[in-house]
Amino acid sequence: MSLVTKPTVVFPNHQINQKQMIDVLKDLFPYHPKWDTVERMIRNTQVENRNLLSPINQVVTHPGFEYRNKLYKDQGLKMATEVTQKILSDNKMKPKDIDLLIVVSCTGFLMPSLTSHLISDLDFRPNTKQLPVVQLGCAAGAWALNRAHEYIKAYPDHNVLLVSVEFSSLLFQPQDDKISSLISNCLFGDAVSGCIIKGIPENGDEGYLIENIDSYVKKDSDHYIKYDVKSTGFHFGLDKEVMHSIKDVAPIMEKLINGYSNKNVNDLDFHIFHTGGRKILDELVSNLDLVEENVSKSRESLKNHGNIASGVILDVLNHEFNSKTRKNGDKGIMAAFGPGFTAEINHGTWIKN
Amino acid sequence: MSLVTKPTVVFPNHQINQKQMIDVLKDLFPYHPKWDTVERMIRNTQVENRNLLSPINQVVTHPGFEYRNKLYKDQGLKMATEVTQKILSDNKMKPKDIDLLIVVSCTGFLMPSLTSHLISDLDFRPNTKQLPVVQLGCAAGAWALNRAHEYIKAYPDHNVLLVSVEFSSLLFQPQDDKISSLISNCLFGDAVSGCIIKGIPENGDEGYLIENIDSYVKKDSDHYIKYDVKSTGFHFGLDKEVMHSIKDVAPIMEKLINGYSNKNVNDLDFHIFHTGGRKILDELVSNLDLVEENVSKSRESLKNHGNIASGVILDVLNHEFNSKTRKNGDKGIMAAFGPGFTAEINHGTWIKN
Repeated sequence: MSLVTKPTVVFPNHQINQKQMIDVLKDLFPYHPKWDTVERMIRNTQVENRNLLSPINQVVTHPGFEYRNKLYKDQGLKMATEVTQKILSDNKMKPKDIDLLIVVSCTGFLMPSLTSHLISDLDFRPNTKQLPVVQLGCAAGAWALNRAHEYIKAYPDHNVLLVSVEFSSLLFQPQDDKISSLISNCLFGDAVSGCIIKGIPENGDEGYLIENIDSYVKKDSDHYIKYDVKSTGFHFGLDKEVMHSIKDVAPIMEKLINGYSNKNVNDLDFHIFHTGGRKILDELVSNLDLVEENVSKSRESLKNHGNIASGVILDVLNHEFNSKTRKNGDKGIMAAFGPGFTAEINHGTWIKN
Repeated sequence: MSLVTKPTVVFPNHQINQKQMIDVLKDLFPYHPKWDTVERMIRNTQVENRNLLSPINQVVTHPGFEYRNKLYKDQGLKMATEVTQKILSDNKMKPKDIDLLIVVSCTGFLMPSLTSHLISDLDFRPNTKQLPVVQLGCAAGAWALNRAHEYIKAYPDHNVLLVSVEFSSLLFQPQDDKISSLISNCLFGDAVSGCIIKGIPENGDEGYLIENIDSYVKKDSDHYIKYDVKSTGFHFGLDKEVMHSIKDVAPIMEKLINGYSNKNVNDLDFHIFHTGGRKILDELVSNLDLVEENVSKSRESLKNHGNIASGVILDVLNHEFNSKTRKNGDKGIMAAFGPGFTAEINHGTWIKN
């Protein structure tokens, strides 16, 4: 039993819409030879609004890797603390009730990690196990739920806290005028989110009970989604070849579902897909023959917040809780995609007593 | 059952002894106001030899974070590949036999991570689970064995491969003349190492069967062992307060042992301690009332290779295999210490059929 309870998703205060962002980029790259293409492609992202850690003028002025990483540390710890306190309070738990703390975050680098800071600052038990992960990008949220599922298989009465800290705006590189980078600058949003994964659900608990998990690494895909690490920080790189990966993952998802129920993916009651971008969702629709409604919550998250990296699956899951349409026994799937090309998938049942 | 089998530890070719390193630093900091203190403290490290990824002249010439991280990627992947192939061959296994691949490495940053590269390059199963960890420094080796132990508790017939890639020489900062940094420049060594952790030991297998594990994070210790992240890369920082942490960990070790056997730490047959540095080992001797012989293998590793970060516990464990003095049923402890101040501890039995 590993029950994913209602997530908390918190967005920083600074908002920017698509039109504002197009204007900002137009000012920054006034002589871009392919500007019309860039602008058309940005409009096609279907990302209408995003929240950013800082006002856009600060985001686009690269103040150096050191400054940015300090901002990441200070604001990341502050927002992770707020999110942790809210999750614990919502679950009527104390820090001492947490046995394993997972922090996933690919937009800054700290040693000691955020797990260590949170355990110390919030008076978690000194023997709380820590699992800090930086290198799994957008796949890290579903990855963490899969690892929590395994952990709870070993320790059925334990509780896991997952926190995702993603400030992709700290990766804005003002000298990078590649078309794919300009699009990415309008795609990713900032958010801090998290949830508790419980070994022993209590009476009245509602949530997503993960039952089966799977992982996938695509061969020779290291250039699909990647960072270049430079003195100016992490430089996000995206190869459009990544779009062809979904056709490899679709049969893995089908197999995971078929192995445990006689449903196909459209028969499932809920679908929690990483948004990646519009094209990734289109590929999912196409390769899984999905009814459009089954990606509607992912499209909604993308439209309102952009791709919040490892936090997307928590945002989409949160919409499932908020919609109040889920019934006890509903079946669903979760899938997220990340660097190189990696996928983390799980399948399970909605619990509502 | 989680049996840690014989590690492979590989050192890069470029060697430097203590005297040579003192001469190099003397040339680099000819006007250091406290040079005599620095030289005396370097002599006190008891580190006589180290292996470095590159010739010392390349190490001390900072060619930029981007260049260094590329070196980290190319050479890290090359050596991790060699180590992985040797471990698999020693264990008569194929890549397809590995269910979880853990790579721990705190001296460079890659996305996709080394786990992803190894799975792709060496034809691991595409559904091999990956656990790449950067932020746990010197504690990461024992941390990984503890996580492997938990994983195998959930999946008793699975196999875990652990690889540690540590090139601390890539963190040399030629403008940093703090005394603690100059000492650190003479303390850390480079190595790539690894081992397989088996769920089901086969007839004839020898190894360390982990039975009990514990973790510890010291409150308000984030400045003890840390990185500052700058445009020039990771800057290692060490506060001498860290020396006082061992007194907190010693009773945790005693408790872990007493909880499962009626032995005290000196009664154990083998002791696999992270070397940290001479002073950390002295603190262990003092706080655990250890017979000096029980830290001799750790002192030996420190003397010949320096502190090879997450790989130390694999090197010391390897000495236990090579010494051929271990008998079936021998009891032992492993402990490693890392950033902020964190400790990972385990306790178990030597298996030899």
